Amino acid sequence: MPWRLVISSQIATSLQYPIQVERIEKDLYALAQYGYNPNDKGIYRQGLTDVDMQARAWVKEQFEALGMNCFLDGVGNVCGRYVPPDRPEVSDRPAVLIGSHLDSVPAGGMFDGTLGVMAGMECVRVIAENNIPINRPIEVIGTSEEEGRFGGMLGAQALTGNLTLEWLERAQDPNGESLKNALEKCGFNLHDALHAKRDPKSIRAFLELHIEQGPVLEIEKKSVGVVDGISGVFKWLIKFVGKADHAGTAPMHMRSDAFMGVADFAHELSRIIDEDGSEYTRLTIGRVELKPGFAHTIPGEAHFTLVGRDMDHQVMKDVALSCNKVLSAIARKHNLKFEYEQLSWLEPRHFSDELVGQVERNAQAAQLDFMRMPSGAGHDCQFFADLVPTALIFVQSVAGISHAPDEWSHWDDIEQGANLLMKTVLDLCLEDN
Amino acid sequence: MPWRLVISSQIATSLQYPIQVERIEKDLYALAQYGYNPNDKGIYRQGLTDVDMQARAWVKEQFEALGMNCFLDGVGNVCGRYVPPDRPEVSDRPAVLIGSHLDSVPAGGMFDGTLGVMAGMECVRVIAENNIPINRPIEVIGTSEEEGRFGGMLGAQALTGNLTLEWLERAQDPNGESLKNALEKCGFNLHDALHAKRDPKSIRAFLELHIEQGPVLEIEKKSVGVVDGISGVFKWLIKFVGKADHAGTAPMHMRSDAFMGVADFAHELSRIIDEDGSEYTRLTIGRVELKPGFAHTIPGEAHFTLVGRDMDHQVMKDVALSCNKVLSAIARKHNLKFEYEQLSWLEPRHFSDELVGQVERNAQAAQLDFMRMPSGAGHDCQFFADLVPTALIFVQSVAGISHAPDEWSHWDDIEQGANLLMKTVLDLCLEDN
Repeated sequence: MPWRLVISSQIATSLQYPIQVERIEKDLYALAQYGYNPNDKGIYRQGLTDVDMQARAWVKEQFEALGMNCFLDGVGNVCGRYVPPDRPEVSDRPAVLIGSHLDSVPAGGMFDGTLGVMAGMECVRVIAENNIPINRPIEVIGTSEEEGRFGGMLGAQALTGNLTLEWLERAQDPNGESLKNALEKCGFNLHDALHAKRDPKSIRAFLELHIEQGPVLEIEKKSVGVVDGISGVFKWLIKFVGKADHAGTAPMHMRSDAFMGVADFAHELSRIIDEDGSEYTRLTIGRVELKPGFAHTIPGEAHFTLVGRDMDHQVMKDVALSCNKVLSAIARKHNLKFEYEQLSWLEPRHFSDELVGQVERNAQAAQLDFMRMPSGAGHDCQFFADLVPTALIFVQSVAGISHAPDEWSHWDDIEQGANLLMKTVLDLCLEDN
Repeated sequence: MPWRLVISSQIATSLQYPIQVERIEKDLYALAQYGYNPNDKGIYRQGLTDVDMQARAWVKEQFEALGMNCFLDGVGNVCGRYVPPDRPEVSDRPAVLIGSHLDSVPAGGMFDGTLGVMAGMECVRVIAENNIPINRPIEVIGTSEEEGRFGGMLGAQALTGNLTLEWLERAQDPNGESLKNALEKCGFNLHDALHAKRDPKSIRAFLELHIEQGPVLEIEKKSVGVVDGISGVFKWLIKFVGKADHAGTAPMHMRSDAFMGVADFAHELSRIIDEDGSEYTRLTIGRVELKPGFAHTIPGEAHFTLVGRDMDHQVMKDVALSCNKVLSAIARKHNLKFEYEQLSWLEPRHFSDELVGQVERNAQAAQLDFMRMPSGAGHDCQFFADLVPTALIFVQSVAGISHAPDEWSHWDDIEQGANLLMKTVLDLCLEDN
């Protein structure tokens, strides 16, 4: 593949210590065997299952083979810490953490999460091979249960102290298995989970490489995204209550059609974004339930979700207010009762300018095809953003597909992303202190 | 109740042979005991069930007590035929049929269908009491299975020859019980069912009194509706197929959101009616299913029903064409694939001008609060409309509610409707031939 060779050598010349993408490829395929289903070609490796623990044991072996000091913490985060054998004096300095998750959604793909862990491992491999005299430890972490089987991001929340005993005792998966039970089957317990918290002073920075899981980089023809923050998100459950009538006997102007309320509201979403939103605003109606839901009956009730996202707190507030006003007006127009429940409101997270700027300068210096962008989805790193300098690097996703067997990223895009991670890791590790 | 007494006496003076609504009231309450559920106060008397057959046996007893010649035909229609004892010579003349149904939906009300049968019985009672020398037989029919447990209007279809052996063998209820089995449990068989067909030449007219089951008469402050036809109806199953994406990572302008297609289409329905419909056009989206139907995922597929109704064939065609054009345009706009399946298309039925005119003149002569109107819902009489002179009289429904325990009609409105039926029956029965 001459084109691939050209790309590789172009990056190689601009970087003193390039990664070898073939090794990341080999590791990702090896890891993908854990939970692979040959029927649908999907990966089934949900957090805190047997196959998830087997994958973590394999990752731990790879870490150990590179001379890393390894352990699984109290929630199953697999942690490999590298200090150069001839520099034990740096072992207590604040470490550079490279982390992403090892679990998958059911029928997931082979890049989601795993890419960040395997790329972090490749960075350590390059450092070890070249005896680079780094001034601080590097720790690669394969986090536990990021996909929300139990309703959170267990591994990253544990590391950053975002867990409570009360939540741990209450959490259960959609099949009713308790988190407590799942942890115990894997050899952990709730109190160990709370001990997984790290002291932020022990961390110099948290870095994550992840596939974009969206279409922007592909459409913008960029290999890599330098992410400067994660959207805030609110989730509402909205109810319109009208009157279920016979679809034949009730004239149009005498109806209280709950679905027409939903439809009119959906129709206004683009106007709400134009007037009160930003280029990063997203409004999505993902679930709609009509009652009684018969073809010949006017819907008497409509229950639906609204998920709103933006990078800016005030924009989120303005958009939410506008949605509320539009819903009220539509309810009056269609003679409906309207109520909503705010199921969640998460503020936007902005990464530190200093580290994001560093990543961006590295991308420019290496002449990568990159753009700055926010992330619309949540990631492990979001829990670190308020505590330590944090950066997230995206790699282009083919057709924006993720959480599906045909999730894919091109190896040359991965190479660019992993080299950008490598360069940033080295910047941080070669600092004097 | 002085007001009620005033109304009664006003009608009584304008009619030679008024009905006595108290007797209809008593009969309706007696009939309502069959299938009454004291918990939700609904009536559970689905067609071809034990309780339905018990109700029919009771109706047959009442018919016989009035000197009617009674039988259950091959699908369970309970038929009571009255010929004045002193006029056997008229017994072979074309009869006036008064019919409606005795079955209910689950948790139905006490007027739907039953009113027409009990009012027909009251007409015969008045004729018998007064020895009115009628010139033709009157037959009151409590039809079988009008509510569509088996997907049709079994009783009326049987009487009018709108059944095939193939359909009878194939039909089953939503629980999977076959019509064949249900008929056999009630003592009938498929071949008897086909023998229930009547010769149209044996019928002078078919008359039905029914509650409106809609809000028009109440809003228009009319007691009675003179119905001149039944809307045609088409039912489509429509699919939009877009792309299920993460609600956070996919920017608004890069989406193929199948639900936004449904919403935009619903939003256009009123314009379609304004441009191509009539005052009788109804367009209803009653069922919507989104896939995958998760709050944080853009709907990749939307399956929904569209039910359209109008009184005019060409209007139905124009509205359907317009819906198709709008759906196509919206599919292009949102980058969706669109397909639809026409599940049914029933033409509008217009009742004979002569008989509808007669009913209307009778309503005027009796100074009733009435209006001419079409029916948006189907009724037993629609199968007779193409074969014999047919008329349908509506009685106001309180709040338009039907198919529910709180279905109600005021007794003075029922009195007006039943007197209008009585007068029309007499007109037809006192004809010379």
